[in-house]
Amino acid sequence: MASVSIDEAMRRAIELAGRGLGSTSPNPVVGCVLLDAAGDVVGEGFHAYAGGPHAEIVALAQAGERARGGTAVVTLEPCNHTGRTGPCAQALVQAGVARVVIAVSDPNPVAAGGMETLRAAGVEVRTGVREAEAATGNIAWLTAVRRDRPYVIWKYAATLDGRSAAADGTSMWITSEAARIDVHALRGTVDAIMVGVGTVLADDPRLTARNLRDGSLAIRQPLRVVVDSAGRTPADARVRDGAARTWIATGAEVGTGPDGRVDLTRLLALLYQRGVRSVLLEGGPALAGAFLAAGLVDKVVGYVAPKLLGAGAPALADAGVRTITEIIDLTFTELTQVGPDLRFTAVPRQREG
Amino acid sequence: MASVSIDEAMRRAIELAGRGLGSTSPNPVVGCVLLDAAGDVVGEGFHAYAGGPHAEIVALAQAGERARGGTAVVTLEPCNHTGRTGPCAQALVQAGVARVVIAVSDPNPVAAGGMETLRAAGVEVRTGVREAEAATGNIAWLTAVRRDRPYVIWKYAATLDGRSAAADGTSMWITSEAARIDVHALRGTVDAIMVGVGTVLADDPRLTARNLRDGSLAIRQPLRVVVDSAGRTPADARVRDGAARTWIATGAEVGTGPDGRVDLTRLLALLYQRGVRSVLLEGGPALAGAFLAAGLVDKVVGYVAPKLLGAGAPALADAGVRTITEIIDLTFTELTQVGPDLRFTAVPRQREG
Repeated sequence: MASVSIDEAMRRAIELAGRGLGSTSPNPVVGCVLLDAAGDVVGEGFHAYAGGPHAEIVALAQAGERARGGTAVVTLEPCNHTGRTGPCAQALVQAGVARVVIAVSDPNPVAAGGMETLRAAGVEVRTGVREAEAATGNIAWLTAVRRDRPYVIWKYAATLDGRSAAADGTSMWITSEAARIDVHALRGTVDAIMVGVGTVLADDPRLTARNLRDGSLAIRQPLRVVVDSAGRTPADARVRDGAARTWIATGAEVGTGPDGRVDLTRLLALLYQRGVRSVLLEGGPALAGAFLAAGLVDKVVGYVAPKLLGAGAPALADAGVRTITEIIDLTFTELTQVGPDLRFTAVPRQREG
Repeated sequence: MASVSIDEAMRRAIELAGRGLGSTSPNPVVGCVLLDAAGDVVGEGFHAYAGGPHAEIVALAQAGERARGGTAVVTLEPCNHTGRTGPCAQALVQAGVARVVIAVSDPNPVAAGGMETLRAAGVEVRTGVREAEAATGNIAWLTAVRRDRPYVIWKYAATLDGRSAAADGTSMWITSEAARIDVHALRGTVDAIMVGVGTVLADDPRLTARNLRDGSLAIRQPLRVVVDSAGRTPADARVRDGAARTWIATGAEVGTGPDGRVDLTRLLALLYQRGVRSVLLEGGPALAGAFLAAGLVDKVVGYVAPKLLGAGAPALADAGVRTITEIIDLTFTELTQVGPDLRFTAVPRQREG
């Protein structure tokens, strides 16, 4: 294989890492490219699913003896602990790798220490290569580990005037098929999809990731979570079918806040304990408002149809903002057209820690 | 000057035409490039203001004798009538121009006939060069002439969730200074700015086109129009100051519809009679809703701040839509960032005539 630069190898490793998105939790996504002493690519790997081999192990197996004296280019600091698989740092040392280039250090205290192990064994370690790009690819996991709660993406679909249903409650469909297909792809990248019981009662959604053309289900399905303070989810609701696992999170099970509703911080903590690192919050307006008011939304993905209603349910309600100075400030991170619709992503402007 | 292609000359003529935007009404914007027999540029002109010389006349004056045997490249069919200035078609014939290349034919029956005059005098005439581009540059005037009413642009500013004020009524500022500067530039391109009396009572706006940095007024100010069915505009409202002309359009003067409010079709007809070819509708939500319900909006320009409120006045109300099948369908024509905000333009999807 052709000789590549370290930078180019890291770009490739980040690309490989992304292939694991949606199936590695509670682990991060990781990609690895192995170069031999001459700088030729001799191995590639990514972490594909929790319990499966780590990226470095896949790449080392591919490279065999050619790894000796070479360079491992890896998107995240190699782990130092024995979980379901052995420590990668040790495997790299044993394979005789001379140099390890890392994009992002591991913030997880359980797994960290890989760099020390490598250095102690005489391996040259370099960090920070394409760090921002690699961190973006792993943003859900990194945020979750730092905050001890899943990364929360609020997704909504609305008209230009911010409405999700007409005056009579009809809402199918405001956005285009292209936008809805995009939503199913997004669902495929998260560990859990969450809605309030109001959405279940109003729309009876399936909350699965599927091919909209033929209805076939994706191989891996996110956990379905219904926030249902008083246990009102009907016995025959579609979210209770066998297409995916479902958790009806009631106030009795999770605990409630002063308002008698499910305590959202506690809900996220329980999800984190279950291994959930990313949640796609899909509605309705009051639940989204409660998450935003509590500062528990990490990213907003909006699908905005070039349509106007002038009446009907808003996409967002009761976010705790009473006056203009309390407005929730975001920054656009992406603006693109999906079919006839606009898709934007935005993140909170002031973020603590 | 260097020899240019006809296509290149038309691109330049369209660019020149645009310089007149905002000051030519009730006339269209027009640009003209004159090439001599060898294809060299010998004259350029645009129509700068109503009553001033037409584009062709400016270019001919610049070219003098060099126009003889040459080509006039003009964005709109040369006029054939004597208004405040003489007919351009005749002037081109007299200057000995051998060929006239036109982008858009004149839909105005009073001024049309230029092409016949030219052809009858033995001038070669070609039409349709960069027609769509030239028509876009003249869209307000072309639409106005075809519909006997001004072209209406609805402009609004809102949060992602479609709100223009917080729960307590505060609204300054939702969008950025960059967006507000952009609005003042937009105001400079129209003949009139319109609001409902509710906006005057709530915000007491100036409705002038000005430099936001130093407050200085643009040389030309659009007519300020307040739709004020019951005559409630306060005597000391800022819109009554001397900075620009103002029309308080009351139900008594304009006439009212069955709902007792100003008849909007009649209002637009009266504005057209006054020479207004383009109107920037700036609010509030109910007036915008009434215009949309009546099918009287030709273009929407929205400034969307990456912010969320979850409560407060919506940007749009009562647009006559009761159920999803009645939704007002638009098509995005532009999506861009203005400072931290998103600006989109959209036009109605199904347009009659």
